[in-house]
Amino acid sequence: MKTEQVVLAKRPEGIPSDDVFRYETIEVAKPQENEIMVESLYISVDPYMRGRMDDSESYVAPFELDKPIVSHIVARVIESKDSNIVEDDIVVGRLPWRKKMTVNSAEVTKVTNHDIPIYLYLSVLGLTGQTAYHGLLKIGNPQPNETVVVSAASGAVGSVVGQIAKIKGARVVGIAGGQEKTKYIKTELGFDEAIDYKDSNFAQNLAQAVPDGIDVYFENVGGEIADEVFKHLNQFARIPVCGAISGYNDNEISFGPRIQPILIKSQALMQGFIVGNYADDFPQASKQLAQWVEENKIKTKTSIMDGFENLPHAFRNLFSGDNFGKQVVNVENDI
Amino acid sequence: MKTEQVVLAKRPEGIPSDDVFRYETIEVAKPQENEIMVESLYISVDPYMRGRMDDSESYVAPFELDKPIVSHIVARVIESKDSNIVEDDIVVGRLPWRKKMTVNSAEVTKVTNHDIPIYLYLSVLGLTGQTAYHGLLKIGNPQPNETVVVSAASGAVGSVVGQIAKIKGARVVGIAGGQEKTKYIKTELGFDEAIDYKDSNFAQNLAQAVPDGIDVYFENVGGEIADEVFKHLNQFARIPVCGAISGYNDNEISFGPRIQPILIKSQALMQGFIVGNYADDFPQASKQLAQWVEENKIKTKTSIMDGFENLPHAFRNLFSGDNFGKQVVNVENDI
Repeated sequence: MKTEQVVLAKRPEGIPSDDVFRYETIEVAKPQENEIMVESLYISVDPYMRGRMDDSESYVAPFELDKPIVSHIVARVIESKDSNIVEDDIVVGRLPWRKKMTVNSAEVTKVTNHDIPIYLYLSVLGLTGQTAYHGLLKIGNPQPNETVVVSAASGAVGSVVGQIAKIKGARVVGIAGGQEKTKYIKTELGFDEAIDYKDSNFAQNLAQAVPDGIDVYFENVGGEIADEVFKHLNQFARIPVCGAISGYNDNEISFGPRIQPILIKSQALMQGFIVGNYADDFPQASKQLAQWVEENKIKTKTSIMDGFENLPHAFRNLFSGDNFGKQVVNVENDI
Repeated sequence: MKTEQVVLAKRPEGIPSDDVFRYETIEVAKPQENEIMVESLYISVDPYMRGRMDDSESYVAPFELDKPIVSHIVARVIESKDSNIVEDDIVVGRLPWRKKMTVNSAEVTKVTNHDIPIYLYLSVLGLTGQTAYHGLLKIGNPQPNETVVVSAASGAVGSVVGQIAKIKGARVVGIAGGQEKTKYIKTELGFDEAIDYKDSNFAQNLAQAVPDGIDVYFENVGGEIADEVFKHLNQFARIPVCGAISGYNDNEISFGPRIQPILIKSQALMQGFIVGNYADDFPQASKQLAQWVEENKIKTKTSIMDGFENLPHAFRNLFSGDNFGKQVVNVENDI
């Protein structure tokens, strides 16, 4: 049986162009003992993957050239040699970008709750939800009536961060780009304030939105937006540093005001993290997140792009500011 | 009775020039109930005071214009209206820069251990020792065989940080300016490595001194030295941010590589602090520090400049890189 895969053809400079990705036709192996054959339904594209495309030391190994790109995928089982898994089961795992593939069943997790859209296992019920949960609660530790600011607030992580902060009783200010997004986080997600970083009065609007200063800043973007936020930190502010997407496609190091004087002045804490640091607590967090989703306390938005051929396009969307909510690619009709 | 005082005559730009300080002759009040009259013996000059000379919001209120400059002073009691304090008692407190003064006895602490030089109550047994102790142990939390790097390593705080890290079993690398200082911290204080930041091969020498990366960086200086250190952070590195002396006299904000990508890559923690954050633990730390000093596990160096008239000069010395160890001014012969 033949299938298609997407490999890393070359290392990108800046935003990955089409020739960074190469489509290939390959053979799918027959499943052996403890293996399953699956077909991809939804493929996740995530900003952190940009780092893996570079050939530099990081917290995750770089993607290898001429090998498939890997991300989280929700897939349907089409053949099983594992007694715990049957045809038509839905599984999720970190898998190569292939339409069909045979994998060891230990590489995937079976999805048991079918009352919610299965692509949520790539967002709020998957790694982006876990990222928001642990980064906010373990590092940010928001208290009732504290002011929490989150950047990229309409994104997969930021939107969940803001809603969890609301559940914890904090006053939440989201930063996002454009009126559609700011309106969404304020009216649909219930943020207290939403600031458009594209507005020429951004700095002034931000200052007005945080009259009592900032106790927690959940950092997703870095760059000049963050520089502006840092001007309002309260004493003992906490800054979970989850991402710095503004610089992911830069070839040069981003310069800004050095942070040391700011941290001393506020006696603030800034901590970088990756979701894997909290793997031991994933099961407990999954349960809590699923409950909040079912109770409609956490709402989500997913940008679904159709077609296996659109994976590069969907990935680039993450950096254009055009995507809204969690970006996934639906490939279920591409068999 | 008349005495002399030093007031802030104007706010400095850059390194404070002589006309920032004004000497005045004033009257000393007679002590009333619960008051004591003291004569200054040793006056502390400390880098953090530079921030108080500016008229900007900070963690401590700015010095007021035309009011005396204030720092820690070791003084001798010459008259007492407090039943717990007698003439010739030695006291220490945060006091105005005056040769003689009358203060409420609650503003000072009596020095009970006279087996060690009393000016150590301005350094290792005073706030700089407390700063080193709490910043290193509460935030840095060095473990045996971890690599600890400290900047301004021959200074009042840095020298104590390095020696406590050695007591805790860490491998300690100090950064200081010039061969005299690097030789001192390596041969006299027992640091494992000492790197001269003035050496043109600083970056390379630092890299060679931390073959296993850096687990704790105790930050005293900021600027380009720190930028270089950040290239070697290990996963889960901890960075107590105590000072950023390189920029204290700058009128403009210091720019450097933004820190967010570095913190994410290492999942590092960076925390600004001031010693007052740990006031509840001062008594326990005082006892421990005094024990280490008596056991000769912590050695100290004090730069003593004579003469009340030299306070401005001694203060400027902090920023020239010329001072060595804790800088104090001896005024006991200036009565």
